[in-house]
Amino acid sequence: MADALILHEDPCSGNCHKIKLTAALLGIPLELRQYDISKGETRTPEFLAGVNPHGRIPVLQVGTRFLPESNAACWFLAEGSRLIPNDPFARADMLRWMFFEQYSHEPNVATLRFWMKFVGEDALTEQQRFLVPLKRAAGEEALALLDRHLQARSWMVGETISLADVVLYPYTSKCAEGGFSLDGFAAIRDWIDRIESAHGFIAME
Amino acid sequence: MADALILHEDPCSGNCHKIKLTAALLGIPLELRQYDISKGETRTPEFLAGVNPHGRIPVLQVGTRFLPESNAACWFLAEGSRLIPNDPFARADMLRWMFFEQYSHEPNVATLRFWMKFVGEDALTEQQRFLVPLKRAAGEEALALLDRHLQARSWMVGETISLADVVLYPYTSKCAEGGFSLDGFAAIRDWIDRIESAHGFIAME
Repeated sequence: MADALILHEDPCSGNCHKIKLTAALLGIPLELRQYDISKGETRTPEFLAGVNPHGRIPVLQVGTRFLPESNAACWFLAEGSRLIPNDPFARADMLRWMFFEQYSHEPNVATLRFWMKFVGEDALTEQQRFLVPLKRAAGEEALALLDRHLQARSWMVGETISLADVVLYPYTSKCAEGGFSLDGFAAIRDWIDRIESAHGFIAME
Repeated sequence: MADALILHEDPCSGNCHKIKLTAALLGIPLELRQYDISKGETRTPEFLAGVNPHGRIPVLQVGTRFLPESNAACWFLAEGSRLIPNDPFARADMLRWMFFEQYSHEPNVATLRFWMKFVGEDALTEQQRFLVPLKRAAGEEALALLDRHLQARSWMVGETISLADVVLYPYTSKCAEGGFSLDGFAAIRDWIDRIESAHGFIAME
């Protein structure tokens, strides 16, 4: 890749960790620019005009172009690599789990981690308190589905690690910080061990 | 494609329409199996065991394999076609908007359509009533972002229609059914006209 790769990120974010983990597994160097979400640093006029009008990180900068959405950034880094299956059905099935992650897993498992660990339970708004049990139930459903899927296989798709594993790993492995438990999910715990043993693995800071 | 393609779907669902629209634009025949979400037909033991353990449609059946997640099914049908850009950055940017659709647009714009049109405002639960203003605000933010993006271009990515347009079209075009208005969003209205003029376009039933 000729263009310089700069990741606009917050080290606390699992969505950012996915991208750094993809890069680490593939040996791709990334320059990091750090922001603190909790201080509103991704909502400044400069950030909105220059990096992402949606006011969110991560954003992968590729030369002078900007790519928001964590899973799209993982895809960009991994195209043509061993992290994306060659078989067309398996490739689509990998994307299926990446969409599952963003629709059914992250909004519940990651949001509760953010609220419990970074906002703090006592500081939650009335709205957030109302949402906690809904997100708790939906997050548990997502984790249970993941566990059932992994009971019959080592990796989410095919016979080796792919982006489906990489993008589901960060918030699943940190789910206890949001009050979830993996006690009943042995297949998930074994899968986490497999990912953490992969050559090039890096932990979230 | 050698395998028979069967779409497990509900004709009321925009997520199902995306897949039928992708197939129509590319001239790919799909066999349809219809379910009524509102009657729980995707939560039966047979459906959970045989089609999708997540209890959701659409699911694209490819021979004997099953692919849940609407945007993954669109990808599978469109691989190698004119609906996916050749340029790697543009391809990732298309996926960026597909993830945006599932994370920031569909959970708000589509859910309010379902609640207002199919459940009925008077039949909403207390929980759903609480969520309406949150989803209203988030849906309006997503539509505003879409409109700003389209003010400078004809299509979401590159110079021609891609899956980013196809997957954002169904719920955006039907957003009034969820109580949203496109009155202030001329760029979105023009983009809808362009999509509906595309060769092969089919409307939602």
